[in-house]
Amino acid sequence: MATHPRQRMIQSAALLMRERGVEATSFSDVLDHSGAPRGSIYHHFPGGKAQLVEEATRYAGDFIAAGLAAALEEDDPVAALQRFTDLWLGTLRDSDFKAGCPVVAVAVEGDRSAEARAAAGAAFDRWERLLADALTHRGVAAERAHGLATLAVASIEGGVVLARAQRSTAPLERIAAELGAIVRSAAA
Amino acid sequence: MATHPRQRMIQSAALLMRERGVEATSFSDVLDHSGAPRGSIYHHFPGGKAQLVEEATRYAGDFIAAGLAAALEEDDPVAALQRFTDLWLGTLRDSDFKAGCPVVAVAVEGDRSAEARAAAGAAFDRWERLLADALTHRGVAAERAHGLATLAVASIEGGVVLARAQRSTAPLERIAAELGAIVRSAAA
Repeated sequence: MATHPRQRMIQSAALLMRERGVEATSFSDVLDHSGAPRGSIYHHFPGGKAQLVEEATRYAGDFIAAGLAAALEEDDPVAALQRFTDLWLGTLRDSDFKAGCPVVAVAVEGDRSAEARAAAGAAFDRWERLLADALTHRGVAAERAHGLATLAVASIEGGVVLARAQRSTAPLERIAAELGAIVRSAAA
Repeated sequence: MATHPRQRMIQSAALLMRERGVEATSFSDVLDHSGAPRGSIYHHFPGGKAQLVEEATRYAGDFIAAGLAAALEEDDPVAALQRFTDLWLGTLRDSDFKAGCPVVAVAVEGDRSAEARAAAGAAFDRWERLLADALTHRGVAAERAHGLATLAVASIEGGVVLARAQRSTAPLERIAAELGAIVRSAAA
């Protein structure tokens, strides 16, 4: 965890949102989880919970983008996608299927926090672009690369939702196998 | 809408959950939306909100399964998947991207309502089986059919999340195009 209270609160908000959604994550919960002093909330987040949720969404989007970018730097797209999926499988197992993706949680609760919803949209777009760029570098045409990247992001994120609901890693493992075959034949 | 107050409350809960999630959908909201008399809640749902949410999840799961089954009865799997995606695109456009899938909303908010979470898992499993059965009838091997069905359900549901976050039908349209090509070559 970060040492600065403001950053700790942002991380705590993201960790709580990925388990229970945005609405059920209160300022009080974030304070308890982060150990930040009660009086510090409006000092650090003058825009209130909406600001905290927006920053937590950006933080989670950046964190996941960094994991994806690192995987794509070290491996070819097929292996990188498997490595990225493995990160999600680890999160599901380590949390006993309690934790999913905080960015999805924000998108699903809609425009109650329009800035956070927009930050979620930007995060998905960034992950799609990272993957699409890696595929075009392997010779995949730009339009196909964009389509495959969107399919991969949506199916992995959707697969995390199915895995939580079914309390099983099997759906995400089936998706990873299908995606691997599809991307392998596209980027051969 | 159904005419019986109990059924109207279940439909209203599903319609509100798909826009704002479970936690932000109160009994009061459901009464206002359904026009059901205030005193009727605990008469119809002695298990309280947890029971209402669980029944709304089952209702939504059955409703979506019926749409998918009808599409699969009338068309080959590729055309049926396009028709199924078109239903989601219609929901997104008609709601100005406010409405998504209530079953995903339940899964994302985790085990705060364990029965509803389990109902969400069963709904996904049922949709996957409908698709997998249609694919095996077209000669796809059982294991591959299961993998493709999970990929389709997860990517369409994930695509609805991306579309809402980005306020655009484009991600779901890209996914539909990719899925169409993949299923066409598998079930040729």
